[in-house]
Amino acid sequence: MSDRGVLMAIGGHEDKDGDREILKEVARHVDGGVLVLATVASREPEAYLEMYEKAFADLGVKAIRELYINERAEASDPDKLSVFDDAAGVFFTGGDQLRISSQVGDTPVEVRVRELLSRGAVVAGTSAGASMMSETMLVRGPSSESYRIGDLHMAPGLGLVRDMIIDQHFAERGRIGRLLGAVAHNPRVLGVGIDENTSAIFEGDEMRIIGAGAVYVVDGTDVGHSNVAEADPDQALSMHDVRLHVLSAGDSFDLQRRRPLPRS
Amino acid sequence: MSDRGVLMAIGGHEDKDGDREILKEVARHVDGGVLVLATVASREPEAYLEMYEKAFADLGVKAIRELYINERAEASDPDKLSVFDDAAGVFFTGGDQLRISSQVGDTPVEVRVRELLSRGAVVAGTSAGASMMSETMLVRGPSSESYRIGDLHMAPGLGLVRDMIIDQHFAERGRIGRLLGAVAHNPRVLGVGIDENTSAIFEGDEMRIIGAGAVYVVDGTDVGHSNVAEADPDQALSMHDVRLHVLSAGDSFDLQRRRPLPRS
Repeated sequence: MSDRGVLMAIGGHEDKDGDREILKEVARHVDGGVLVLATVASREPEAYLEMYEKAFADLGVKAIRELYINERAEASDPDKLSVFDDAAGVFFTGGDQLRISSQVGDTPVEVRVRELLSRGAVVAGTSAGASMMSETMLVRGPSSESYRIGDLHMAPGLGLVRDMIIDQHFAERGRIGRLLGAVAHNPRVLGVGIDENTSAIFEGDEMRIIGAGAVYVVDGTDVGHSNVAEADPDQALSMHDVRLHVLSAGDSFDLQRRRPLPRS
Repeated sequence: MSDRGVLMAIGGHEDKDGDREILKEVARHVDGGVLVLATVASREPEAYLEMYEKAFADLGVKAIRELYINERAEASDPDKLSVFDDAAGVFFTGGDQLRISSQVGDTPVEVRVRELLSRGAVVAGTSAGASMMSETMLVRGPSSESYRIGDLHMAPGLGLVRDMIIDQHFAERGRIGRLLGAVAHNPRVLGVGIDENTSAIFEGDEMRIIGAGAVYVVDGTDVGHSNVAEADPDQALSMHDVRLHVLSAGDSFDLQRRRPLPRS
């Protein structure tokens, strides 16, 4: 990442009424300023504002402004865009990542999100809001089964992180198969699977982990064989010599060198 | 493996009324002889004999003899043991792997199973019948979540394979977390996770894969850090530099060298 800001990819179901470790980290970066709550991933965004206002209430986030984009044209509307004026961060809620990419991708809203990052603000996203940060994102695709080489369910994401595919609800929905399949298509991308109530935080070239679960890093650099380009779409994936790191709270990872960093 | 026989570990739910690829492979090894159906893993074994007689009916298995052990003492009963006379193989059905190890472990039944292997016969097991082949076996333990270092649900298995932990229903039940946790305890053991309707077949020092799904091989040889011996049992697993192979039909694996073999 060349931006100065902080990117928080959250695996969904972050704690909202207990110790709220992940929301606390968002609030720490917002630092008393205004947080934009982007509910565009959802088709029923009504409940989110109240839910997050309540969750953030005593964490020092003074003002939350909702941004909902129902039609793509609204993503160029100056009134809508004004929510970003003086904002200290943006939080993308869950839903369908295709709604984020199709409504907001390559629009002035995306420009404003990138501006936030480049001036050092925080951009957080949970569930679909984490997936859309990928360059090429996983859209659908089977959970709790091994990857079959005919399964192609990817789409261009916002690309807030480079050379990476982020998946969420990871252990909970048994998604290692589809992340391995995604990486097999081009091991240039690093696979990052994030459990619920867990966040991968990107600052500079470092990723660090907070929260209750694990983050799985799938590195295909050394893969010497995969069958992903073979003919039969029903064939199960074969992929040799994947390097897998299981990271949890306290771990951090050097994205340039693709190496876990020693624990402090 | 130092035995001459064939060991077939099946991930559960092998096809019983379609092309029955896995049962065909069992039948091929039984080669017209008698198959012992060991239903000891189940508390309600009544339906299994009929089910497998039907599934094997036109595959050339002429005679199936059921072996059920309700109490451990029965595993020394000469009448029970006589089912093994002239048998060409044994098939362990599913249920609870603790029932197999506690009723049959270190009894004359186990001796007869090992004799079968040493004279070149086939020993197959599905689901619990696959798990029990491990030296140390996974018993319970969470599915669809990341491993927490306090989760210890292992017990001594029959050890028909050495230096290995076999898990089953693997992708379907999201079990990568618990297999990684098991390997973290001692990377001497290779983790082998088998999908449903899929079999890892052990002959000599080679493992080969048949069936519809994948077999995941977790090799902890290069792991430079894990937190599995740390104090807090609720902490999620951290484990760096796991080598993971995803194998599917047509793949084989050298167990001595821990390397996938080139596809023929």
